[in-house]
Amino acid sequence: MAQYGLIEAGGTKFVLGVADEAGTISARHQIPTTTPAETLGATVAWFKAQALQPEAIGIASFGPLDLNRASPTWGHVTKTPKPHWSGADLAGPLAKAFGCPIGLETDVNGAALAEARWGVGRGLGSLLYLTVGTGVGGGFVSDGRLLQGLSHPEMGHIRLPRHPDDEGFPGHCPFHGACLEGLAAGPSIIARWGASLSDLPADHKGAEIIAWYLGQAVVTFQAIMEPARIVLGGGVMNTPGMIDRVRAVATQSGGGYFVGDPREVVVSPGLGQNSGLLGALAVALAL
Amino acid sequence: MAQYGLIEAGGTKFVLGVADEAGTISARHQIPTTTPAETLGATVAWFKAQALQPEAIGIASFGPLDLNRASPTWGHVTKTPKPHWSGADLAGPLAKAFGCPIGLETDVNGAALAEARWGVGRGLGSLLYLTVGTGVGGGFVSDGRLLQGLSHPEMGHIRLPRHPDDEGFPGHCPFHGACLEGLAAGPSIIARWGASLSDLPADHKGAEIIAWYLGQAVVTFQAIMEPARIVLGGGVMNTPGMIDRVRAVATQSGGGYFVGDPREVVVSPGLGQNSGLLGALAVALAL
Repeated sequence: MAQYGLIEAGGTKFVLGVADEAGTISARHQIPTTTPAETLGATVAWFKAQALQPEAIGIASFGPLDLNRASPTWGHVTKTPKPHWSGADLAGPLAKAFGCPIGLETDVNGAALAEARWGVGRGLGSLLYLTVGTGVGGGFVSDGRLLQGLSHPEMGHIRLPRHPDDEGFPGHCPFHGACLEGLAAGPSIIARWGASLSDLPADHKGAEIIAWYLGQAVVTFQAIMEPARIVLGGGVMNTPGMIDRVRAVATQSGGGYFVGDPREVVVSPGLGQNSGLLGALAVALAL
Repeated sequence: MAQYGLIEAGGTKFVLGVADEAGTISARHQIPTTTPAETLGATVAWFKAQALQPEAIGIASFGPLDLNRASPTWGHVTKTPKPHWSGADLAGPLAKAFGCPIGLETDVNGAALAEARWGVGRGLGSLLYLTVGTGVGGGFVSDGRLLQGLSHPEMGHIRLPRHPDDEGFPGHCPFHGACLEGLAAGPSIIARWGASLSDLPADHKGAEIIAWYLGQAVVTFQAIMEPARIVLGGGVMNTPGMIDRVRAVATQSGGGYFVGDPREVVVSPGLGQNSGLLGALAVALAL
């Protein structure tokens, strides 16, 4: 079987892997994210040490990324607050070292592709993956194809109505204040209540407010895309009871108008600890 | 050249046409929308009178529609308040009469396809079409393909923040109250201010409020899809100065975060009076 090189490129670590097209991961390795030269150098060295002759290499990366194949800076990180990485060429060093096609997508796009192909969206035609953690990001897949216009989605920055008990909070997004990310990501929770939802009392109203915002986001996604599944991942979703609260809010706010019932549509990720590497594999296979 | 039968199916009239694949319309005709049997019967009769032997027939229709090709009721109107038309089979009578493939999409999906192919989105890869009139509806095309999950988009029903000077208004959508349609469609304007924006004084604050909501919607669409063009059509957009107000709000609210600049991305429709029939042709050609 053909072998694929896999890179889950995160802000603190790169997870590397080798897999076949069926999704069997035969080797994996983890390196810290330092500078582009060092981290990508170590990536190439590890693949070489595996004697990898890849059919293709798939990268599921933190962003933002230039994903326009017609652009001279395709495959580069664009502007990021992460030191050393603004403008870094992710794809180039790998293409040079291995002479194979390189697939690159955002990490959430990779997760969306993988969940649609092997996970909770298998056989269902369309899936949206939303991660709610330090930031909020999303990807949407329909018939195996990612949604993309001029750039990859930045779904964390949609506009939302305000929860009546949260009106004084200006929102925590440096660009938009009270967008979804500014109202529901981890830092916005700490900014309001001084701790993460998991560290607050179980009956703290923060969980109700965050679930309400995520439920409004689910309604907006249903209105625009009607995904067969909306997968909610990320640290904020580890709050006990959160997914059921989001389902209840979306069911109530949607008013039965959409084809998909949020109690069935809204789900947790299905691929567990391999989801990042399988995302990279799905990116490589989508080439 | 191959000939195509075109149907622009509206709530008050059906516009019929014959065209070739280049978009040259060789005949057109208009009939009132009465009952399905009568209106579809007259449609078949007119096509027969043109001696049409169509390669395919394209229908761009009012909705909601069952567009799931695997469904036994594909090609039917689903539940609509319009008398006689709930459950009406639009595609069946035409397939039976002409034995050719039938394409069916919502009218806004047709308009999106046509503007992407021949109009303001030509050659640009992605386009969103939003009509703001009695209701609000939208369609999105990327690389010639329509966005669709479990159903066609219902973009009028996205959630939005509330304009500070509009807080007392409950919204006019029977399903969702204060969704985009409930806050910005024509009936919501009349419900608040007793007249359409065109009939109110030029400096009435209604125009500012409606433009603000549409600007928020533009930001949400950019965050999710980053369309190369967002086409704003429909009666509400005929208000003098409205499109410039929407561009200004979206530019300010987007904070420069997205790749597309709203002053370039947000445009008026380009296809004029043929847009409905060209939508039907684009639907037929997309088969």
